[in-house]
Amino acid sequence: MQIAVLGTGLAGRTLAAALQAAGHHVVVGTRDPQASLARTEPDSRGTPGFGQWAGEHPDIGVVTQAEAGGYGEVLINATSGEGTLAAVGAAAPPPGTVLLDVSNALDFSAGFPPVLSVANTDSLGEQLQRAFPDVRVVKSLNTVNAAVMVDPATVPGEHHIFVAGEDADAKAVVTRLLGDLGWPATSVLDLGGIRSARATEMYLPLWLALMGAAGSPVFNIRVVTP
Amino acid sequence: MQIAVLGTGLAGRTLAAALQAAGHHVVVGTRDPQASLARTEPDSRGTPGFGQWAGEHPDIGVVTQAEAGGYGEVLINATSGEGTLAAVGAAAPPPGTVLLDVSNALDFSAGFPPVLSVANTDSLGEQLQRAFPDVRVVKSLNTVNAAVMVDPATVPGEHHIFVAGEDADAKAVVTRLLGDLGWPATSVLDLGGIRSARATEMYLPLWLALMGAAGSPVFNIRVVTP
Repeated sequence: MQIAVLGTGLAGRTLAAALQAAGHHVVVGTRDPQASLARTEPDSRGTPGFGQWAGEHPDIGVVTQAEAGGYGEVLINATSGEGTLAAVGAAAPPPGTVLLDVSNALDFSAGFPPVLSVANTDSLGEQLQRAFPDVRVVKSLNTVNAAVMVDPATVPGEHHIFVAGEDADAKAVVTRLLGDLGWPATSVLDLGGIRSARATEMYLPLWLALMGAAGSPVFNIRVVTP
Repeated sequence: MQIAVLGTGLAGRTLAAALQAAGHHVVVGTRDPQASLARTEPDSRGTPGFGQWAGEHPDIGVVTQAEAGGYGEVLINATSGEGTLAAVGAAAPPPGTVLLDVSNALDFSAGFPPVLSVANTDSLGEQLQRAFPDVRVVKSLNTVNAAVMVDPATVPGEHHIFVAGEDADAKAVVTRLLGDLGWPATSVLDLGGIRSARATEMYLPLWLALMGAAGSPVFNIRVVTP
């Protein structure tokens, strides 16, 4: 499958590499490919510059946002929540595109821990579906960190990942991609329409608190029923 | 231990009866005990009137909010989020009281599913601690329904309940009460200070979505770590 990823951060890179390794054809879309590729120094948190990462992944093309939007059947939004609507607008995906939204709308303006820039009565996933009514938004993967996204077996035993969106076929496409990443079909819980994007985005504060309690971002939750 | 419960709804009744059955001395505080006891007809959802419930639990006293506030070492807030600050204000618990807050600030003004009346940059638990700085607020039990609160074994295997609050001794008191209700110490996860009340209150939309997916409010989550 042809898959384009918007976002050059850790989540975008991790997903792009894992989907390419799973046999898909993947490109990463960025506002200015030349500028992104020129960043070869690590950032303040020690993440390698995007140019270095791209050099280590020569099979993954680096393209403009507009090229990414027209590239394939699936467009993955892995931008920071702040830049999401502008990035998807620049990508202008054609009608019917499956827009897999893995982002959280983090607001660090008051420091760590962040709050959400949209919550409670709306969500980033819902904003995307309203702004781009002809694409098929599926919210998923935003409840785990990048390492768990692409290697769920790093957390032992049964645990769950969520999908939310209006289009059943689009959720089926995403569920197959989740399978390619190692998520068994039984681990994928369908939360219904795109309104449930709100549910998974508002889990962020609990995720942060659990990360603090666990001392690691590598964990997940299992929904236990009688 | 002497425990007072504010709130005559399902959560308050269920906790009061279970804690009394576990050997504690329990009263329920309400704005107008006579009026509450006079309600003997079921409500629109089929919940028996409070007067009927009280008749079936003759060992549990029904008192005013002020009497409840002075009754014991632990005051449980099981009021609706809307009425919480007024109810605790009327109870006026003395300094040092452990205020176990099990409520969620549900706003049904736009119908079902509810949104939260406070979220993201604040929470009901934090509001309570700010409004009553001399009591020791512990947020807990608000992430499961009433049946699971008092019978965690109804959900099989390991699953978790959270405590958040500023005072370690108060959290230890609550952890012992959780033990009386059937929660093993290993199932109690300490999320740190009262700010984490926000984390558990904002889980509500995910809880609602999971209830929809599971078709039942009887479930819980297990935090899975490597």
